Amino acid sequence: MSDKKQKQKKPQKLKARLARGFPDRSPGDIRATDQMMAKIRTVYERFGFEPVETPFVEYTDALGKFLPDQDRPNEGVFSFQDDDEQWLSLRYDLTAPLARHVAENFNDIQLPYRTYRAGWVFRNEKPGPGRFRQFMQFDADIVGAPGVQADAEMCMMMADTMEALGIARGDYVIRVNNRKVLDGVMEAIGLGGEDNAGKRLTVLRAIDKRDKFGIEGVKLLLGPGRWDGGKEGEGDFTPGAGLDHETINNVILCLRDPLAVIAQGGGWANASISTGLGELNTIEEIVVASGYGPDRIKIDPSVVRGLEYYTGPVFEAELLFDVTNEKGQTVQFGSVGGGGRYDGLVSRFMGQPVPATGFSIGVSRLMTALKNLGKLSGEAASGPILVTIMDRDRIGDYAKMAQELRTALNPLGGDGQPTGPTIPVELFQGNPKDFPKQLRYADRRGSPIAIIQGGNEKEAGKLIVKDLIEGKRIAETITDNAEWREAKAGEHLVDEADLVITVKRVLAEQASDGQEI
Amino acid sequence: MSDKKQKQKKPQKLKARLARGFPDRSPGDIRATDQMMAKIRTVYERFGFEPVETPFVEYTDALGKFLPDQDRPNEGVFSFQDDDEQWLSLRYDLTAPLARHVAENFNDIQLPYRTYRAGWVFRNEKPGPGRFRQFMQFDADIVGAPGVQADAEMCMMMADTMEALGIARGDYVIRVNNRKVLDGVMEAIGLGGEDNAGKRLTVLRAIDKRDKFGIEGVKLLLGPGRWDGGKEGEGDFTPGAGLDHETINNVILCLRDPLAVIAQGGGWANASISTGLGELNTIEEIVVASGYGPDRIKIDPSVVRGLEYYTGPVFEAELLFDVTNEKGQTVQFGSVGGGGRYDGLVSRFMGQPVPATGFSIGVSRLMTALKNLGKLSGEAASGPILVTIMDRDRIGDYAKMAQELRTALNPLGGDGQPTGPTIPVELFQGNPKDFPKQLRYADRRGSPIAIIQGGNEKEAGKLIVKDLIEGKRIAETITDNAEWREAKAGEHLVDEADLVITVKRVLAEQASDGQEI
Repeated sequence: MSDKKQKQKKPQKLKARLARGFPDRSPGDIRATDQMMAKIRTVYERFGFEPVETPFVEYTDALGKFLPDQDRPNEGVFSFQDDDEQWLSLRYDLTAPLARHVAENFNDIQLPYRTYRAGWVFRNEKPGPGRFRQFMQFDADIVGAPGVQADAEMCMMMADTMEALGIARGDYVIRVNNRKVLDGVMEAIGLGGEDNAGKRLTVLRAIDKRDKFGIEGVKLLLGPGRWDGGKEGEGDFTPGAGLDHETINNVILCLRDPLAVIAQGGGWANASISTGLGELNTIEEIVVASGYGPDRIKIDPSVVRGLEYYTGPVFEAELLFDVTNEKGQTVQFGSVGGGGRYDGLVSRFMGQPVPATGFSIGVSRLMTALKNLGKLSGEAASGPILVTIMDRDRIGDYAKMAQELRTALNPLGGDGQPTGPTIPVELFQGNPKDFPKQLRYADRRGSPIAIIQGGNEKEAGKLIVKDLIEGKRIAETITDNAEWREAKAGEHLVDEADLVITVKRVLAEQASDGQEI
Repeated sequence: MSDKKQKQKKPQKLKARLARGFPDRSPGDIRATDQMMAKIRTVYERFGFEPVETPFVEYTDALGKFLPDQDRPNEGVFSFQDDDEQWLSLRYDLTAPLARHVAENFNDIQLPYRTYRAGWVFRNEKPGPGRFRQFMQFDADIVGAPGVQADAEMCMMMADTMEALGIARGDYVIRVNNRKVLDGVMEAIGLGGEDNAGKRLTVLRAIDKRDKFGIEGVKLLLGPGRWDGGKEGEGDFTPGAGLDHETINNVILCLRDPLAVIAQGGGWANASISTGLGELNTIEEIVVASGYGPDRIKIDPSVVRGLEYYTGPVFEAELLFDVTNEKGQTVQFGSVGGGGRYDGLVSRFMGQPVPATGFSIGVSRLMTALKNLGKLSGEAASGPILVTIMDRDRIGDYAKMAQELRTALNPLGGDGQPTGPTIPVELFQGNPKDFPKQLRYADRRGSPIAIIQGGNEKEAGKLIVKDLIEGKRIAETITDNAEWREAKAGEHLVDEADLVITVKRVLAEQASDGQEI
């Protein structure tokens, strides 16, 4: 045996595998996402937002580090060095790149600058079930908008978006808080200033865990720390912020009723808290005047939002209907997006204040929600009509039939646009030797019709238009194999010239029968 | 001065700059691309193709190295190491990831597998004018399609795509060749086998430069080498393949008329060349039977295609109309996409043959072509109606007007879909102190109408609907500043309750005047 033969016998076989946390997307997911995004886009455009996109890769320093997970300060982001030794990163959100874009083009941009963008972002985190390292966000931002009326508008636009997607009023709420209130709380409990940044983060993270662990869990995280198993020594331990009992109670009260805490006076009556509450009042006035009651947009002092760059109002879009989680528990669906004011993000580059506010939707999470509600199908309009191949030396004939049908079934209007939903037509492209395999392919693709022309039909100038839906219906009533062959279920033998007219007739019959495969 | 104050005085200013070769995208480019892609998608779906997408990041070994530029074997691709030390890369095309996807899901996939995908790909190359490191491709592939009828279908689909985009017949052609012919040529000139892979690549690249350097340039590259300046010692030198005079002439002849060369017999009458030519014949028969003459799909033995993974027919979509290049010369627009058969790409993973063929469109190049032809505008349907802010303590009132207009001007049909093009409505979100600035903003945004309500109007229960198009027209006839103020050009003072009806009337008047800003 020659060397060459041995090589052929043992081909070097690579393993085909997805990189961890990077999923493929199915036709159904892509279609559902596209449908959903078209609806979101329409709402954003009604508010005067225009599409603007930034690239996937930015200089690492231009992005900055604003990720919520600060446990791993050098991680979170995928980075690599360019040939001139500068560090590049895949964007981890769409807000930091927008800030770069605005600062870079500041002289050409007309403020206030309303833009939207949908795009993939990347996080270098441990992947897990439902936790991916690439996911899509759909953002809208107004840069150069100093007043909280802009934050109010973002909230109203989010509410409109939820309803445009078919989410009923009462099944969603936009919750609004203000970082200034939280900053004031931090100040009041002695955690103001640069030096306390680390401890402040521990407190904010503890508050942010309310949905996950409940008030008692938050109290533990604000105090001595929390064991995952519920008892000392059980499960993992998360260290707490070490606040005293009274402070913890005040913090918790602040999340419910900040006015009650301010009434205590002292450090609690500070400027930051009262400015924050004043802004929330203004937002409430604006949205109520515009017809958005607390059933749609609700002031809620417990909203935190993980990202560090927020400087004012923060908001969260929550879905309120129940779903069953992976533990079998009934829970509210929860957040599908959020945002807030980030007045410092553009000015990092500028040396002058550039106020901005924005909102980001988690696209795949929202898609999951809409599928739960039955508001998205992602199904194709129709399976393909299949032109089968009987005689392999007459492929030109079959290709011609396919093209004839394709053109006739998908006419264009005067504007060059299709006049109806697409009816796909396929020439069978697998190995044509095994004919039943061609029909099995048609079946699995949900084909409504197969076209068949063997030598006998060709000689007679005929062809067969096989109604696969009718055929299936008949086949179900037949038990005997010979009987089945005899029945030629759903087959129409017609003149070659009547191909298009017969297919159109069968499609019309199928539509009026409302039959489905 | 405290430390803190010093810090505030000298803020650390980052430089806002795009990473080299990674561009931002403007509203016009995004809209134009979306319009174009919708049309392409419709054609692909008529042929039974479904959307399937792969992630941006893959294991480096799963992608393989099939880039045309082999001068820099370790470059071309952006790569980084995962925390488990495996190498990851940003995809450099959409074909290698598809091969991974098919191999990984082989048991669940129904062959033949027709899919399409649009997506960004990344090349770690030196960026230059019009040469980016991220760009979009729009691919369609059939996997599990052994016959050249599938290649014929790809060519027909490309021709249909060109016409669906408004490119007239005669302004494009799909050129088809076969790698088997080229392989046979290599064999005939003694460059068959693994050992000659490097020299073979030099020859193929030389042939591929025909459009750029002409036949004489190709001859130099096949022979002694070529000086960029045209004479020895002028400009850069590209080493040649070192073929002798007779061989060079035969290679050149093969690119025009392979049959004439085969007629010489000897090594030129090899199996590879004749199989390749036979397949091209079959393709020609099929496309002609389906109504695609040589004005649309043309067999052309000079097509090469740079990528190494092609194993059979290769095709190229070329636009034939003239454009002016950066040197001011009149040239044909040239290639906007191409593809071919890649029977080895999936089987790398499988140890069994999985034939496949596909086509890739260079999205931004095609967009440039369509803009040249006036077939794409990318313009928004309408500028936003602007609700201005006169009294800062009545923002709720203005927000309410904006919301009222937004809802009334963008009604939804029974299906929950918009009944017409979007008419955006904006509340002014900049600093409202400078009122003329608000109107300048409206002007730059192409607003058709501004809504104005000061204290006097409010007291009288009135507001002003300002027709900015009519206003501009009148303003052009006025030279005097005082006269201009007096004229209140295009202003309609109406009851608050008549806001919507007045705006609708003004929009209708503007539409019927066919006026444009």
